[in-house]
Amino acid sequence: MFADKLIEAIKSKNNPSVAGLDPRIEYVPSHLSEKYFNAEIDPVKAACKAILEYNMKIIDAIYDIVPGVKLQLACYEVLGEMGMSVFKETCSYAKSKNLIVIADGKRNDIGSTAQEYSKAYLGYSDIKGSKYTPFEIDALTVNSYLGYDGIKPFIDDCLAYGKGIFVLVKTSNKSSSDIQDLELKDGMRVYEKVSQLVDVWGGSCVGKYGYSSVGAVVGATFPHQAQIVRKLMPRAYILVPGYGVQGASAEDASKSFNSDCLGAIVNASRSIMCAYKSELWKSKYNAEEFAQASRAEAIRMKDDLNNAIINRHQS
Amino acid sequence: MFADKLIEAIKSKNNPSVAGLDPRIEYVPSHLSEKYFNAEIDPVKAACKAILEYNMKIIDAIYDIVPGVKLQLACYEVLGEMGMSVFKETCSYAKSKNLIVIADGKRNDIGSTAQEYSKAYLGYSDIKGSKYTPFEIDALTVNSYLGYDGIKPFIDDCLAYGKGIFVLVKTSNKSSSDIQDLELKDGMRVYEKVSQLVDVWGGSCVGKYGYSSVGAVVGATFPHQAQIVRKLMPRAYILVPGYGVQGASAEDASKSFNSDCLGAIVNASRSIMCAYKSELWKSKYNAEEFAQASRAEAIRMKDDLNNAIINRHQS
Repeated sequence: MFADKLIEAIKSKNNPSVAGLDPRIEYVPSHLSEKYFNAEIDPVKAACKAILEYNMKIIDAIYDIVPGVKLQLACYEVLGEMGMSVFKETCSYAKSKNLIVIADGKRNDIGSTAQEYSKAYLGYSDIKGSKYTPFEIDALTVNSYLGYDGIKPFIDDCLAYGKGIFVLVKTSNKSSSDIQDLELKDGMRVYEKVSQLVDVWGGSCVGKYGYSSVGAVVGATFPHQAQIVRKLMPRAYILVPGYGVQGASAEDASKSFNSDCLGAIVNASRSIMCAYKSELWKSKYNAEEFAQASRAEAIRMKDDLNNAIINRHQS
Repeated sequence: MFADKLIEAIKSKNNPSVAGLDPRIEYVPSHLSEKYFNAEIDPVKAACKAILEYNMKIIDAIYDIVPGVKLQLACYEVLGEMGMSVFKETCSYAKSKNLIVIADGKRNDIGSTAQEYSKAYLGYSDIKGSKYTPFEIDALTVNSYLGYDGIKPFIDDCLAYGKGIFVLVKTSNKSSSDIQDLELKDGMRVYEKVSQLVDVWGGSCVGKYGYSSVGAVVGATFPHQAQIVRKLMPRAYILVPGYGVQGASAEDASKSFNSDCLGAIVNASRSIMCAYKSELWKSKYNAEEFAQASRAEAIRMKDDLNNAIINRHQS
């Protein structure tokens, strides 16, 4: 069960967070990018090589601190098929360091097509009898607008291969209210109804700690709504974006945890990847020490979150 | 404006349909796949080469009949980074034949990430001053669950580069009712509200024929709902899945057209790609003639749709 594996990784590192590996070429320190841009004629190849090394250096610096990483697929697709190779190699490298790997792709389609997405990210392709794993990851974010038959193929693969999904419930962005907050006839909001569906859909994937491998995405930027849906889907592991650069605090993020201090994992991307540029760390680490800065920020975030979770359940 | 370009392509071919290029290796006739599987040790490479040739042969056979093609990204992602190369090469080949190319990716994310998706599919990447177009397409399907700020980056690129998007409103699958049909406090359904948003969002992208480059996806499998949203977003060009193998008729699909006989473009994938296997065509064409069978089906579909559209507006 993915949920069990995730909880064990969180417990072993005493850290309910994931580092978001959402690279942009402008994040890569110049000493590292210049090495490739000077040696390589094709700027796309140079960017891909620089980003891969950047990702790997950050993984090397944090893999003993964080239980997992979350890769934003858009940041790799924007570099075309070579970017998808960087995605693949980063995932494999993270797996070699025993990290949980979550792909943030927000994929969604009708059942027969969702099955192809699921094969791509959670299962495998059967090519005339040869098994091929396109991308080696543990969990994928998915969008539930198409309803159950678009989610079922992913759930089947969660059960078959010990994988997980995180279903978008309440996203961290301001306009998430446009559709997610629409009030229904019975007084509930759309995101509340989706959280109820997540609870039902995840019923077949509950592991030994009482949590389901069918998780949810709930932004830390909406702590009030997080408390509501936490109760509506008590078994769902919640992936929490919005902490750090997006503006939410550890206290905000703590609303997605249950009283067992489990039930959520908080993501931060830019604040970890670009720690060396941040007000907090730039005087202590220079650009050559970007990975140490990422490590320092990962430790700071871990402590910040753990304090907030403990404070919440003591108060 | 994408909407103008689309309408001109539809008018010049007198055909309101697109051919879905959603290949699976099992669709490829054995004479073609064996050529590659015998020559190539790596089955993924063999599958990719076979699928690329299959796509190109179908394009060769239909490019003078259909105004465009729609590529389902999941069918390429399932073959990993090499599959993404096949996607890219198929798009470029279709463009070289002057076809409108729609990528069906249903992408969605918060604004800063949606911008990366938009660069990947509608705009371009700026890699330290070098312009790189990851994938050369005309339009992308998107999912609006995150609201306006997740859609705006795509709309900006529609305006800047003459591209289009199709926003999921009412999808063709059975479970689309789970969330899309939820009844709101004011009596509207979620999909109706989304169609109103599409109408507003598309206001800045209306071309000379009165249609917007911000289109919508409405399944032909829900003809009643199609008539409702057709009125709520009169300017949206509607991409209509569900015709053919999914079970909807030309009459069902005709509900998404306006009285000017414009406003919608109907997709069929399996019925065109696998025409040579179908009850209708398998006695006339053998597997070696798969592309001619696709052409025959594309012509049949065009006539079927045109008749239904004319009948509807005469009755």
